[in-house]
This record gives sequence, structure tokens and C-alpha cells, in this order.
Amino acid sequence: MKILILGGDGYLGWPTAMQLSALGHETAVVDNYLRREICRRVDVSPLMPTPTLHERVTLWKKISGHGIRVWIGDLTQWDFTMEVFQSFKPDAVIHYAEQPSAPYSMMDRRAASLTLHNNLMATLNIVFAVRDFCPDAHIVKLGTMGEYGTPNIDIEEGWIDIEHKGRTQKFLYPRQAGSLYHTTKIMDTDLLWFYVRVYGLAVTDLMQGPVYGLFTEENREHQALWPSFNYDELFGTVLNRFLVQAAIGYPLTVYGKGGQTRGYLNIMDTLNCVRLCVENPAPHGSLRIFNQFTETFSVNQLAERVCASGSRLGINVTIQTIPNPRVELEDHYYNPMHTGLLSLGLEPHYLTEERLDKMLSTVLTYREHIRKETIFRGVTWK
Amino acid sequence: MKILILGGDGYLGWPTAMQLSALGHETAVVDNYLRREICRRVDVSPLMPTPTLHERVTLWKKISGHGIRVWIGDLTQWDFTMEVFQSFKPDAVIHYAEQPSAPYSMMDRRAASLTLHNNLMATLNIVFAVRDFCPDAHIVKLGTMGEYGTPNIDIEEGWIDIEHKGRTQKFLYPRQAGSLYHTTKIMDTDLLWFYVRVYGLAVTDLMQGPVYGLFTEENREHQALWPSFNYDELFGTVLNRFLVQAAIGYPLTVYGKGGQTRGYLNIMDTLNCVRLCVENPAPHGSLRIFNQFTETFSVNQLAERVCASGSRLGINVTIQTIPNPRVELEDHYYNPMHTGLLSLGLEPHYLTEERLDKMLSTVLTYREHIRKETIFRGVTWK
Repeated sequence: MKILILGGDGYLGWPTAMQLSALGHETAVVDNYLRREICRRVDVSPLMPTPTLHERVTLWKKISGHGIRVWIGDLTQWDFTMEVFQSFKPDAVIHYAEQPSAPYSMMDRRAASLTLHNNLMATLNIVFAVRDFCPDAHIVKLGTMGEYGTPNIDIEEGWIDIEHKGRTQKFLYPRQAGSLYHTTKIMDTDLLWFYVRVYGLAVTDLMQGPVYGLFTEENREHQALWPSFNYDELFGTVLNRFLVQAAIGYPLTVYGKGGQTRGYLNIMDTLNCVRLCVENPAPHGSLRIFNQFTETFSVNQLAERVCASGSRLGINVTIQTIPNPRVELEDHYYNPMHTGLLSLGLEPHYLTEERLDKMLSTVLTYREHIRKETIFRGVTWK
Repeated sequence: MKILILGGDGYLGWPTAMQLSALGHETAVVDNYLRREICRRVDVSPLMPTPTLHERVTLWKKISGHGIRVWIGDLTQWDFTMEVFQSFKPDAVIHYAEQPSAPYSMMDRRAASLTLHNNLMATLNIVFAVRDFCPDAHIVKLGTMGEYGTPNIDIEEGWIDIEHKGRTQKFLYPRQAGSLYHTTKIMDTDLLWFYVRVYGLAVTDLMQGPVYGLFTEENREHQALWPSFNYDELFGTVLNRFLVQAAIGYPLTVYGKGGQTRGYLNIMDTLNCVRLCVENPAPHGSLRIFNQFTETFSVNQLAERVCASGSRLGINVTIQTIPNPRVELEDHYYNPMHTGLLSLGLEPHYLTEERLDKMLSTVLTYREHIRKETIFRGVTWK
């Protein structure tokens, strides 16, 4: 199968590319290095050195024998998007090509504007590129569980049947997000759902929770193939960041009451979810939605698990509650469904003590690289 | 009160500006003439000559004694937006500044891209301009009934209480629109609702149906003050367009079965709805939503009314059914609530025979201006 991975330089994009190419798919990656550029602007950096896409592709070819095609360019530019799709004509398009940081999107007007523009205009171009150059392609787009927010009713997988005054209608599950970034993902869903109805596109929208982890089947032996691992408050997902904070004795920063509960998953499960969707495409004219996580934790529970891991490894980890810089409920009902991907065959890698300890001990070997002053960014929502 | 009208050159913006200035408010208008530019590009034009904003402001000043300040510029540009808000510091902002044509938004990729970019980026800049320069201002933003689509349950005013598996939650009413333009309005609503929660903005979102009419209290005696009146399939709302078609013996074009039902209102009611909202602002930290229309008609009913008006005026009007170029239900349940604006004091101007005949006879006096070949545009959704 010809698979095009948009945002192929990212934390999830690159591991996805290796996995799918290892499975024998003809794989290509596209990126504009936007995240690298933003990281430079705001002075944060990944824990381990992250070679360029071209460098990683060369190394991966040497190790695995599998080639990956690379395009560096901006999907908000139609001439570039057209060139990629016209030339590669993918069977599946995996769309990670978005500014992915909630705190960055809340930093200031320019960051909000960049996020809104990048995420929406890229998705629109992808819609037209698929329509015009590969109408049979299946689009797998990464959404986020954050689109749903924290409603007081069960969160279904994308859709809900509403009974109202004796009549019924199926709707996209009502969405209400907690950051501008998450709001752009709601808009993405609306945009794709509209064009699914009009152009008959085949789309899978994956409502993903925060991802953690470093290792995949393909990268264990080669640090240069590890994903870009951020640990700052802007680009570091919470568990990854807590592990880095633990490694240098920086108290784990819990926002407010710490009861904020989300659905999490291991990076290996992200890859398998995406692969399962590619292998089992959505039918044309449908928007298939899965909630993509394997278990739920509150921030307090995550912090406690990292403390316990620290104890097992002989390091002292503390927790510090700080005033919540975000606007969110700190104590709430949370019961999201997540059976769709299990039905497709997902076998979860849960957050075991062994996996947590392995991550923490790996991070400890890189502790000299940690730039402590870049962790706290002080971005407030208000 | 200082009132800033964004999109002040438009079909609704200009009449709104005259009404509010006639009431003694300090009024300013902003426009980038985008609609004029698009009309030139696609070769359509309004029925009557429409002077520039500066020319109309000069004439209005001469007639009424009321001045209106004018800024010509692009609200997707922050430097311009900042200049306007910093200098004028409005108490109320009326946001009409969007690409308003559904068919135009479906014409091709560039039109879709322009619509998405213009509508979203302008709204985002307005949010930040209000936050930074006039945080007490009330934003009155024009949405559209089209955001709701045609669900099989009653359409509430913006919000719905959902009971699900024994628990309840209030949500924005789930939205599912029929064009890219309408989808950008859904996104606008999501964007404003997010920033209402985070920045405590005061926002009224008016879900407006298609508007018809020419005359307002302020413009009756002076054709140069009439609103920009389009009659082509791109920018002409359906009733206005049918009247022009009737005037030149061009059969009224009903798409498909003609059972498509929407909520309509007279342009005078639009002005009064907006005025009532400005006079009764939404509280800060709230998104108040009203459904803005006064009566519902199917396309068949509108066509029949125009035929009947023609008979009364002694002209022969015919109806022609054509294959529906849109993707929409042609026969559907439609029961939208609309009590909020009536509660605020709206006194509707219904579509009486007298009003319809007055409009048709006015259009007849301009029949030499009608460019018949520009009416049909052949934009299809597929």
C-alpha cells in the first residue's frame, strides 16, 4: 500500500513511518519542520538529539533496508500539497500535520493565529488534494479526546443518538474543548465531516488521548531513531514531562486539585491503532470515529505512579501543587467509551511498573541533557 | 454608545450603520470591499448602483446630519484590526465581516480557502482586539440558521440539554451545515464559545435565516442609500433573486423537490434584532444565542408567493424545477424555535402581499439593469 504520512517529523509521525515501512508499505513522509522552528523560537528542545528527517531516513534504510520518501514543505501551500499528492498518489493518508501544543496555542495572539491557520488550511488542502489526485485514498486524521472536554455524561465514540421531545437524531457528539489547539481539532472534524458528505471521502478520525513513551519495535536499538521527545510544558505530554522532572529532582507540577482525568496510551498503541485503521479503511462517504486511548488516569494518579517508580529506582520524587494556569474542571465525571479499536484488534500496552521504570531509567541516562530552566513556561489561559 | 460595524459595506452592514447612527449612536464601519472584489471576479453585480462607503457616508451625513466613521481595510490583518479597535474603542462590535455566499464557498478550492481563511482569521483577530483594547465591549456576531442543518428533532436556540444514560449535560446544539460557508460559521461559534469561557467575553450569536428586502426606515427616499442588492445565484438570497427573475420572465429555479424549508426575515427585522441585542447586551462570560427569523417557508412556497405577486402586478411568472446542484434534503422535518428575540421586543415585518408587491414593483422599475446571463452560475456541490 502507498502510505503518505503528513507531519512525519513529529513525535508520532516518524515512529509511524518506520512501522509502516517495516511492514512493507511504500511510505512517504511530509513535514515543514514547524515544530522544530517553534521550539527554537520559544527556546525548548527535545531530550535526545533528533536528526533531520533525511538523516533518519538514511539511517533507517541502512538498518532495515526500507526506503522512505521525504518531502519538506508546507501543506498550507497548495502548490506544494499538489506536488506531493499528484506525484505520490497515496492509498492512505495519515494526517498528523498540525501544531499540536495546547499551551503554545494559548501563549499569545500570534501563536493562536499560527495554530488556527496552520491546522485548518492544511486540512482543507488535504481534502482537495485527495479529491483531485487520489479520490480512493483513505484519510486517517488524528483528532484528540480533548475535543470532547469533560462533559457530565458518558463520552461515546464520536457520535451520539439524541432523543428530544419524542423524536431522534444521530449527531456528531457535541464537542467543547479546553484550548485553542483542541478547538482547531473540533473544526477539523467539522471540516472533514462536511466534505465526507459532499465529496464522499473515506475518513477515520482518531480521538487520541495524551501519548507517552519512547520505544517502538523499530527503534529500540538506535537512539537516533527515537522520536522527538519534548519535556517542557509547551510540547512535552504530561507523563513524559513528569519522568524528566523526576530525573532531576524537579517536583512534579500538579495543576490545582489534580483530579483532571484523561485517557492515555503508549506510543506503541498509537502506531498499532493507526496501522489497524490503515489495514481496515473506513468506507467512502463515511466519517468513522474511534476514541484512541487504553486507560484513564487523573494527574494525581500519574504523579503518584512516577513517585513510586522513582522509589523503585532509588530516587526521591516529590509532588508540588501549583495554581492551575488553565481553565478546566479539576474534579469531574469522565467515562469515555473506547471499544472500536479493541474490536479492530488492538492489544494494549498498559502503563505497567516495568514499562514506567524502563522509561524513567532511560531518561536518567540522559539527565545531563536536561535544561531545567526550560521546563516551566508559565503560559496561562487567562 | 460607540458601535463598530464590521462588514459595514454589505447588504446588512450598511443599513445597520444608518439605523444605529440615526438613533444617535457614535457609529463606525469597517470593510475591505471583499464582496465587491469577488463580484467583479465572478462577473456579477448588484441590481442598483451601490456607491462606495465613503460616498454613502457623505450622502447620509447630508441627509440625516449623522456622521459615520469609515475604515477600509482587512480584518485578517492584525495591524489594521489593532488600529481600528485601539482608536475607536467600541462599546459594541457587530460582526458581519465574513464571506457570506454558500455557493461561492463551494465553487472551487481557492474560493473555499478564501472563505475559510477570511472568516476564521478575522473572527480570531476580533477576539484578541476586544480582549486587548475594549474588554467591556459586547460582540454581536452574525451566525446562520444553516449551522443547524435540517435535523429530525426540534432546533432549539443555540443550546440543548441532553439526557444520556441517566445523566444530563447542556451542550451547544449539535451543528451540521450544508456548505463550506455555513461550516465556517459553525467554527466561528466554537471559536467564540471557547474565548467566552477563557477570556470572559460577552457575545451574542445570531443564527440568522435568509434575509430579503430593500427598504428600511432610513433609506426609503434615497436609492443611493439602498443596500447592495445581488440577484445572482452566488450572492443573491433566494427571495431577492426570485423577484428579479420574475421581473424579466426568467422562470423561478426551484432546486429538486423544493421542499427545502428555512426561516426567513425582512431586512428591517435584521436591523431590529441587532439593535435589540446591542441595547440588551449579553452578560460577560456568556455566549447568548438567538435564532433570528420570523417565519418559515419552503422554496416551493416562496416561488408560489412570487408567482402570485406577479399575477397581481400583471406579469406572468413561471416556475422551473432543475436538478439540485446542492447536497441537501429536499423534504425534511423543520421546527426551529425563535422566541428569544420576540422576548426582547422584536415586532416582525412578515412577508405580506403588500410588501412583496412593493418589492417586485420596485425591482420592475430597474429591469433594464438586470444582466440575465449572470443569474445562473451552475455551481454544484459535488
